[in-house]
Amino acid sequence: MKYILLIDSNDETGLVYRVSKVLYEHQLNVEKNNEFVDKDKNKFFMRTEFSGEIDPEIIEKELREILPSHANIKLLKQRKKDIVLMVTKELYCLGDILIRHEAEDFNANILAVISNHQSLEPLVKKFNLPFCFITHENLSREEHEHKVLEKLKEFPLDYIVLAKYMRILTPNFVQQYNQKIINIHHSFLPAFIGANPYKQAYERGVKIIGATAHFVNNNLDEGPIIFQDVISVDHSYSWKDMQKAGRDIEKIVLSKALNLALEDNIFIYENKTVIL
Amino acid sequence: MKYILLIDSNDETGLVYRVSKVLYEHQLNVEKNNEFVDKDKNKFFMRTEFSGEIDPEIIEKELREILPSHANIKLLKQRKKDIVLMVTKELYCLGDILIRHEAEDFNANILAVISNHQSLEPLVKKFNLPFCFITHENLSREEHEHKVLEKLKEFPLDYIVLAKYMRILTPNFVQQYNQKIINIHHSFLPAFIGANPYKQAYERGVKIIGATAHFVNNNLDEGPIIFQDVISVDHSYSWKDMQKAGRDIEKIVLSKALNLALEDNIFIYENKTVIL
Amino acid sequence: MKYILLIDSNDETGLVYRVSKVLYEHQLNVEKNNEFVDKDKNKFFMRTEFSGEIDPEIIEKELREILPSHANIKLLKQRKKDIVLMVTKELYCLGDILIRHEAEDFNANILAVISNHQSLEPLVKKFNLPFCFITHENLSREEHEHKVLEKLKEFPLDYIVLAKYMRILTPNFVQQYNQKIINIHHSFLPAFIGANPYKQAYERGVKIIGATAHFVNNNLDEGPIIFQDVISVDHSYSWKDMQKAGRDIEKIVLSKALNLALEDNIFIYENKTVIL
Amino acid sequence: MKYILLIDSNDETGLVYRVSKVLYEHQLNVEKNNEFVDKDKNKFFMRTEFSGEIDPEIIEKELREILPSHANIKLLKQRKKDIVLMVTKELYCLGDILIRHEAEDFNANILAVISNHQSLEPLVKKFNLPFCFITHENLSREEHEHKVLEKLKEFPLDYIVLAKYMRILTPNFVQQYNQKIINIHHSFLPAFIGANPYKQAYERGVKIIGATAHFVNNNLDEGPIIFQDVISVDHSYSWKDMQKAGRDIEKIVLSKALNLALEDNIFIYENKTVIL
Repeated sequence: MKYILLIDSNDETGLVYRVSKVLYEHQLNVEKNNEFVDKDKNKFFMRTEFSGEIDPEIIEKELREILPSHANIKLLKQRKKDIVLMVTKELYCLGDILIRHEAEDFNANILAVISNHQSLEPLVKKFNLPFCFITHENLSREEHEHKVLEKLKEFPLDYIVLAKYMRILTPNFVQQYNQKIINIHHSFLPAFIGANPYKQAYERGVKIIGATAHFVNNNLDEGPIIFQDVISVDHSYSWKDMQKAGRDIEKIVLSKALNLALEDNIFIYENKTVIL
Repeated sequence: MKYILLIDSNDETGLVYRVSKVLYEHQLNVEKNNEFVDKDKNKFFMRTEFSGEIDPEIIEKELREILPSHANIKLLKQRKKDIVLMVTKELYCLGDILIRHEAEDFNANILAVISNHQSLEPLVKKFNLPFCFITHENLSREEHEHKVLEKLKEFPLDYIVLAKYMRILTPNFVQQYNQKIINIHHSFLPAFIGANPYKQAYERGVKIIGATAHFVNNNLDEGPIIFQDVISVDHSYSWKDMQKAGRDIEKIVLSKALNLALEDNIFIYENKTVIL
Repeated sequence: MKYILLIDSNDETGLVYRVSKVLYEHQLNVEKNNEFVDKDKNKFFMRTEFSGEIDPEIIEKELREILPSHANIKLLKQRKKDIVLMVTKELYCLGDILIRHEAEDFNANILAVISNHQSLEPLVKKFNLPFCFITHENLSREEHEHKVLEKLKEFPLDYIVLAKYMRILTPNFVQQYNQKIINIHHSFLPAFIGANPYKQAYERGVKIIGATAHFVNNNLDEGPIIFQDVISVDHSYSWKDMQKAGRDIEKIVLSKALNLALEDNIFIYENKTVIL
Repeated sequence: MKYILLIDSNDETGLVYRVSKVLYEHQLNVEKNNEFVDKDKNKFFMRTEFSGEIDPEIIEKELREILPSHANIKLLKQRKKDIVLMVTKELYCLGDILIRHEAEDFNANILAVISNHQSLEPLVKKFNLPFCFITHENLSREEHEHKVLEKLKEFPLDYIVLAKYMRILTPNFVQQYNQKIINIHHSFLPAFIGANPYKQAYERGVKIIGATAHFVNNNLDEGPIIFQDVISVDHSYSWKDMQKAGRDIEKIVLSKALNLALEDNIFIYENKTVIL
């Protein structure tokens, strides 16, 4: 059995020693070990992959005894995560995830795809996945979200992936899935927050455009950034050209970020991510 | 003799035909020819390099006759441009330009380096260039700028390069050198406008940082962008690490933008650049 | 109706003038115009997009009269191209093309997918496309190719796309589809020609890996390069990690190259490409 | 006092524990800690930065006692390294290093610049550094190298930096400075080994060019790669354009690689580098 141990704590002398001592005394086979100390904030982060036959509760208990009492300790069995995708009309991010899922590239089960439009249903059906159409028409934002939340409750999920879901979530929604919602924003955040970033980028005459995958928090487009990438553009790009060119990085950035989440590589801390 | 012809105009049918007809009838040897039509704005841009023994006034006159009356026509002899550098204390952008100048990489003469500090004088002196120290101490912004402007008047210059000049220029200054001042901004504009962008980038937790070279206009950091580049960073970068890593792209971005200006590759249009 | 005019020729004075004169006299609306002169080889390339109601034969005849007799002139109606995909077992390049096809991102019809294995049939069937399984088992290379060629003759195609087709084509095959076969090679050519480039890259300890899309000619992996891209790797990547990381650039590079072919942006010349 | 501890060894259970135990028992302040296990080769690498008042010999002795007997253990005081630059005629890499040295960007003293030409003497003299001109004219390779080696013996150096030194070193030379010579190669190795890689790249029609910094071993251009970077080019680049465009990445790649060496970030192992 393979395990992932995630620890974050205020930094103090000997943390690596203490953790490695516990693992050593159980003769566990450490396969990967990464630490990071943020010296400005005096914070310690550690991610360890190991395998062995253990009683996780015992290991966790021993770690609690030798680590500072405020330390966050997570000892996770490596397993396929369960995800739900939310989409609107655009096909390319959803398509990329479906193809990776088909190729078993992702360590995840897609439980369902939820959409406020029907246009992507045929694609989802090709892959024999549940497609839940929940229209927002004639509904207030709260009414629509209520229906979506009811649907989500059917699925015991690890992550919600907003794969071009074009509606803004309320704080209530975000709170119920705190640190579990991953969004792709089609600009190099924090540039061009808000609506139609490609049009903004075009108007400003930038020479590079980007995409940003981030956790969703209560401030639109301001959650912890997981991954970003960019491509060069020039004066010959209309904003629709930018939009088209941007699709490739949007889908790659979202899939890379999702992969980091699925592999438990991410710590969230002070609205930033530490990736180990 | 080598010439560069720059034309911008509202678009209409046959512009390339009309220009190429004039050049053909003079049997000029066109070495490079680039056009761009911005279809949204109905604007036409054309840059042609040619060589031959001509009377430029005659060519220009003929072009005026067959082009729309509002067209901008510039027929430039290819020549070394004259530039003045303005710096404060940071060495790397200035150093990169001095080394390129020494290697005759730039099609430019450096007439002088102006600074509000003395710290870079030894470096400039190594390269036998005039260093003009104009302190801002005990002076109002206007008084200091007045002195700088007086000094600049001594030099019949094509471009002023702000190679990490850390003072904000007044509209009066900018107006006197309209479209002639090139600045390097140490962020991926329009993200992190204003003071200490690396610190802003660090606080926001971005995964990519950048640098932007742009013409200076009256709105701080909002002039037409000439060139941008980026590098990846991660959680392990303190903002000082970002600052250090950013120096390499700052200097390269500034030198590339300067080179585009020196080779007459840039059209400025609606606060954007068209690079041909 | 929209047209694309492609001209290549030895360079001489006035070529742009002559071409633009013909277009002007027919009052055609030129939407995009790009020229390139290779001064070392004295070659001229021109690509023009225009729209209008014309008799293409008349335009072509007039162009032939005023251009050098050896000039290549192609006047193409803009239309959806017909393509056949060839694959073996790997899913990601095929998947990316199918999703783009579904999104109508490509200006192409996929006529069929041919494979020497059956494993990708379920994916292709999801998209309601013909899947032609032609096993190579118990067949000589020539016998197998003969069967593939027979199948291909059923389809009046513009391009064959080798989307991870893992068999080497004979010169006979290549000749029958000269300049019509696009391949993705999973390395940054010309590094790591031949088998298992990721393993070669791993053994050499490179810090960057790449992918190359190229036309296929008789020399394995040595045809004209259309597009390349790279990603950074480090010591922590096993060759399987490199292989996995490389998939994203392979699929993007292949799709970009295919798009350039579909939009008639490519000239092939002396085993190189000129992209206008 | 600040120290850097470098350990490499065959991998076995508990190595991190054992090392961290020694450091913990001396109450040393670990500022940075990185490990890497190459599972294919069963090799363990660890780099630790710590500060404290210690007797290094005691620490090293204790580490030897608890680590496998074959382990390599280096405990280094953090200090400015001493380097000698070797150049021929090209200015840009040398210039970049001199400017960084002037800016105190590098943790190094430049002891001297050795050249087989006199053309860079004026630049070196500007920076008040010893310039040693050793002509190769009328000398056999061995005679010339003998003179260079005699000169080098005057300098107790950590690294020799070949900053565009255009002569091939003999195995005898390389052996005397094993793992101490850093070279910049103006291509994306292993593509275009040997003479004039830009011309090779141009002839092949590649769409990306690169630069590679590596340690020098007895096989030309085949030593362990430290760092690589690339830039995009297109059909419009002559090989001289490529050469010019390549200078910027050559100088940046060399300086980054040198910096990794100066900060003791590099392990060399099976003709590859592990960078921690």
